[in-house]
Amino acid sequence: MILIIKQNYEKKQLDNLINWIKSLGLKIHLSAGENTTILGLVGDTSIVDVDLLRSLDIVESVKRIQEPYKKANRKFHPADTIIEINGNKIGGNNFTLIAGPCSVESEKQIVGIAEAVKASGAHFLRGGAFKPRTSPYAFQGLRESGLLLLKKAKEETGLAIVTEIMGVNHLPLFGDVDIVQVGARNMQNFELLKELGKIDKPILLKRGLANTIEEWLMSAEYIMAEGNERVILCERGIRTFEPYTRNTLDLSAVPLMKELTHLPLIVDPSHASGLARLVPPLSLAAVGAGTDGLIIEVHNDPPHALSDGAQSIRPEQFDELVKKIDVLLPLVGKKRN
Amino acid sequence: MILIIKQNYEKKQLDNLINWIKSLGLKIHLSAGENTTILGLVGDTSIVDVDLLRSLDIVESVKRIQEPYKKANRKFHPADTIIEINGNKIGGNNFTLIAGPCSVESEKQIVGIAEAVKASGAHFLRGGAFKPRTSPYAFQGLRESGLLLLKKAKEETGLAIVTEIMGVNHLPLFGDVDIVQVGARNMQNFELLKELGKIDKPILLKRGLANTIEEWLMSAEYIMAEGNERVILCERGIRTFEPYTRNTLDLSAVPLMKELTHLPLIVDPSHASGLARLVPPLSLAAVGAGTDGLIIEVHNDPPHALSDGAQSIRPEQFDELVKKIDVLLPLVGKKRN
Amino acid sequence: MILIIKQNYEKKQLDNLINWIKSLGLKIHLSAGENTTILGLVGDTSIVDVDLLRSLDIVESVKRIQEPYKKANRKFHPADTIIEINGNKIGGNNFTLIAGPCSVESEKQIVGIAEAVKASGAHFLRGGAFKPRTSPYAFQGLRESGLLLLKKAKEETGLAIVTEIMGVNHLPLFGDVDIVQVGARNMQNFELLKELGKIDKPILLKRGLANTIEEWLMSAEYIMAEGNERVILCERGIRTFEPYTRNTLDLSAVPLMKELTHLPLIVDPSHASGLARLVPPLSLAAVGAGTDGLIIEVHNDPPHALSDGAQSIRPEQFDELVKKIDVLLPLVGKKRN
Amino acid sequence: MILIIKQNYEKKQLDNLINWIKSLGLKIHLSAGENTTILGLVGDTSIVDVDLLRSLDIVESVKRIQEPYKKANRKFHPADTIIEINGNKIGGNNFTLIAGPCSVESEKQIVGIAEAVKASGAHFLRGGAFKPRTSPYAFQGLRESGLLLLKKAKEETGLAIVTEIMGVNHLPLFGDVDIVQVGARNMQNFELLKELGKIDKPILLKRGLANTIEEWLMSAEYIMAEGNERVILCERGIRTFEPYTRNTLDLSAVPLMKELTHLPLIVDPSHASGLARLVPPLSLAAVGAGTDGLIIEVHNDPPHALSDGAQSIRPEQFDELVKKIDVLLPLVGKKRN
Repeated sequence: MILIIKQNYEKKQLDNLINWIKSLGLKIHLSAGENTTILGLVGDTSIVDVDLLRSLDIVESVKRIQEPYKKANRKFHPADTIIEINGNKIGGNNFTLIAGPCSVESEKQIVGIAEAVKASGAHFLRGGAFKPRTSPYAFQGLRESGLLLLKKAKEETGLAIVTEIMGVNHLPLFGDVDIVQVGARNMQNFELLKELGKIDKPILLKRGLANTIEEWLMSAEYIMAEGNERVILCERGIRTFEPYTRNTLDLSAVPLMKELTHLPLIVDPSHASGLARLVPPLSLAAVGAGTDGLIIEVHNDPPHALSDGAQSIRPEQFDELVKKIDVLLPLVGKKRN
Repeated sequence: MILIIKQNYEKKQLDNLINWIKSLGLKIHLSAGENTTILGLVGDTSIVDVDLLRSLDIVESVKRIQEPYKKANRKFHPADTIIEINGNKIGGNNFTLIAGPCSVESEKQIVGIAEAVKASGAHFLRGGAFKPRTSPYAFQGLRESGLLLLKKAKEETGLAIVTEIMGVNHLPLFGDVDIVQVGARNMQNFELLKELGKIDKPILLKRGLANTIEEWLMSAEYIMAEGNERVILCERGIRTFEPYTRNTLDLSAVPLMKELTHLPLIVDPSHASGLARLVPPLSLAAVGAGTDGLIIEVHNDPPHALSDGAQSIRPEQFDELVKKIDVLLPLVGKKRN
Repeated sequence: MILIIKQNYEKKQLDNLINWIKSLGLKIHLSAGENTTILGLVGDTSIVDVDLLRSLDIVESVKRIQEPYKKANRKFHPADTIIEINGNKIGGNNFTLIAGPCSVESEKQIVGIAEAVKASGAHFLRGGAFKPRTSPYAFQGLRESGLLLLKKAKEETGLAIVTEIMGVNHLPLFGDVDIVQVGARNMQNFELLKELGKIDKPILLKRGLANTIEEWLMSAEYIMAEGNERVILCERGIRTFEPYTRNTLDLSAVPLMKELTHLPLIVDPSHASGLARLVPPLSLAAVGAGTDGLIIEVHNDPPHALSDGAQSIRPEQFDELVKKIDVLLPLVGKKRN
Repeated sequence: MILIIKQNYEKKQLDNLINWIKSLGLKIHLSAGENTTILGLVGDTSIVDVDLLRSLDIVESVKRIQEPYKKANRKFHPADTIIEINGNKIGGNNFTLIAGPCSVESEKQIVGIAEAVKASGAHFLRGGAFKPRTSPYAFQGLRESGLLLLKKAKEETGLAIVTEIMGVNHLPLFGDVDIVQVGARNMQNFELLKELGKIDKPILLKRGLANTIEEWLMSAEYIMAEGNERVILCERGIRTFEPYTRNTLDLSAVPLMKELTHLPLIVDPSHASGLARLVPPLSLAAVGAGTDGLIIEVHNDPPHALSDGAQSIRPEQFDELVKKIDVLLPLVGKKRN
């Protein structure tokens, strides 16, 4: 970490600063030039509060040199992390397909979709039981009974289950869930992350709507610091000024994250745009960018009055998409089990 | 709510859609023009899932006409909400000052600052016991013992207390807290909001880093829908592309919010910029924009090795700032009790 | 276009508004409900100033129904526009490769790269003669002499030329240029767009750093409205809060634009991220998303002291990338001539 | 400037890099630590292309220490620049009021408004003759004849004139204009900036919709580097995700810019929000933040069918606002002449 000191600083202030830094166990390399005085901090700077340093009267700016994340950092763990669940491997050269409806609605619905997406090649079933909704007046999910229906679908099809948790107090209900999902709005719900760091299940950590790559990795670090190192990252679009799409899918994040971290990364093309017809092209794009997998909303029609229109793509479109993905996978060095 | 239907739609799809909308208890006004077919939905459209409608194959776009928030909406409650705590009124023509350190560190520190800011005119003491930190390796606050120190400062000075809650399970510890703060990162932690809607304390709801004004009001609505109508909104800066400041304080939100809602709104100039020297000018700016109050970080020096440099302003600067604010208040029709 | 009128409006104001709208040649459909009064404007609303309407005292909000762009709108021109230059077709099911260095530096450099990228399959040579630089102290390009070197490379290799124009007054120098590029910073330099609308060369219109899809199409409309309908759009990344990449490549824009407009769209993965190592994965991603072509910076080494490090990818990496793209093209219904 | 070198770099690459940097006339301070190798570049680094360095294979990241702007930098010119025009001083402790209509429409209109705003205390008349419009079908301003009407108003009232230029080729028409305005969309139209650097008139440089503070200062530097050091900066709102206001006024930029540069800075509250009713509170806010002046749209009614509704505020509201501003000025150490 490098601190640029302001011109015309008071010597006493600089001494105070240096003593404080040393009290944290760090060494200092001082370079006092004609116009600029620079402090180089050597040691484990992840404990240093950058915002505090930046706010000091005598500090002009602070430049990090080392990333503040350790357990998630590829520099210290060069090999890809591969997470195995229920016989399926996520990460490395494995390509993972997670599919299912936005919300769990009924046994017939969830089992029907589970069977369909399994037939097309999905490895995991997704489905929302607890639903984060902007409005308190909107449907909040079937909650506990939704989890039971997911369990039923798992028993019928053998597909492992991915579903979202919204609060620490719901954790006891998640016994049969295989991958616990943290939604975008909870990416910096640190109390929740800490608790999920203590359980023995992989965590699917979605990127927050307006969170940087570094903050996202720091949230993974929260989980890993408590002992749970099985974290799967999920890019799902960020908030920009563009009103046409609900979010802007940031596919540059895919190859970047593969450099920065050893953790698996998947892409959610359904939530990124909010437009079902963009799911197939964005899925192929994500595969081209090098994602380790996709999580796609798929919906079947019969029980649903709005049949043709759901945001999710239908099972037959999913099936067609998987066939295209399979052609593309060898090009990016991946295989679908 | 208005739905624009795509050209060349299938009649059966439109019929399905109309039937589904009617099943929600809404009336429909159909206007089939030469080039454009429009459905007007009449009734309580707050229950309608806009994202779902937008995703339908036959829907080109959806335009809301009514705001989705009701209890927070000034249209239905024209008079300003005034919240009285401990003899202090927040909202209306009252101007409220909340001040205190970023984190509670020791009894000497918190009591010392409380005495200082009270002498300058503050109505409430703020101080973080539970601290949301980007890094799991950074100081997370004194937690329970921090709350006890705040209680001590309250007993010594009579100032009511504002402090942040980070999880539902900490609620039992907040018995002596007068205003419970929800931080920016938890603005859409809906499970937390619901629980806070059931308690009998005012809630200070900070705007999320990348949340729109409408989403912010919907989060207030979450609290109010459960019965707790004493919500105080707090603008604290939003995330933009500008790297110089930590956030961009959105002061346009102040007069806008006064139109849209009857709830009190205060401004936090300390977190917006992350630079203590910007706090005085941004405070005056916020008063000019019409805020109902300010929440300002104030720090005293002696116990702290980094003395001159803390991000917070010092008590004597706070005192000077309050004197300037007092000159400005009559211009905006406010008074400080 | 739909205007929502405020509650409790004055009748005289509404009459004034209605008369003014009628004076523009539009018809009005008035719907006065119990709580809401709505005006529907029927006719060619592209002449209406939405910002003006929105600012009127009695107007609560304005909702467009029709897109403000006409000549660029796919609704009125369902078939793909295919632009033929020098025997190469851009648009439709054709896939176009434009490649070359960031800046033209010397004859040896530009001719060498032109030969290399032609051998790998490029259809056009790109190279900057006029360079938009944030700093006035940075290299501004070889300007006129750069254009002459591009002409030389064209004579040697037969590749048609794409290069950027920065001001109307440089237009006379662009006689030998085949496609005139408008850079991101000039996307709303309307005086330049108007002049380019009067020439007989295709225009490559890059999306502005912070411009919406609609604004981008309106800038295409500026060129087309003057008579030049040969506009090629180029997505090159938008500005977001993420500091890791220079810009965020918006690949959702690709399938969206294919719906909204009949104009060809290409993607620039080099400028989007500012990181050469991201160019191959982002190129494959763009092809997966359905782009009509790519514009890629390619740099050869020998004359350049910084050899291995240039932002651009090297010819052999470009060659390898083209081979991968060729595998992917049939999947998206495209072919490279 | 500091370069962080990647781990496991090749020695030959580092030597190439060092030689290239030395060839630019810079000295190098090499610090090869156990885990990190750092190059410190000493000398005038404003000529160095940061993007190029950042893209090198062996460079992990680049940190600037010195600002890339020199002539605009307060470090090298500690005293406030005061620009005198027509007997009015802009900058220092002077407070400047610029007012007038969005567009020049007729002699009666512009002279009428000029008289009104002069009576209320305005120092300059603003009015658009050339109008940058998103749509080619919208009114583009009276252009040349608009400039003649502004001249007329100047003759009648003695108010100096501020108006926008959209292209280099219009410069000969601007002989009677006192301050030449560069609009937000042209902030990085570098060819225009260079030409304006050669004329003998002050330039009002608006901040671009999505431009950082540093880019804004670099655009001022473009003008100053050519010899014209009379640049007035104008904050007018930046683009964010918030849809309620057209732009988000960034008032933190006001005190920040006063630190970074000696140039005068004014604020435009009219364009920031696009809502006339927000102009008075945002004006008071800007004064509180320390602005050197305001540029406000004022419109008179009679000739205009839409009377009560124009985006601009009316003369009587402007008059009332000026009275409030006058109360506030002593608090921020400013005076209105």
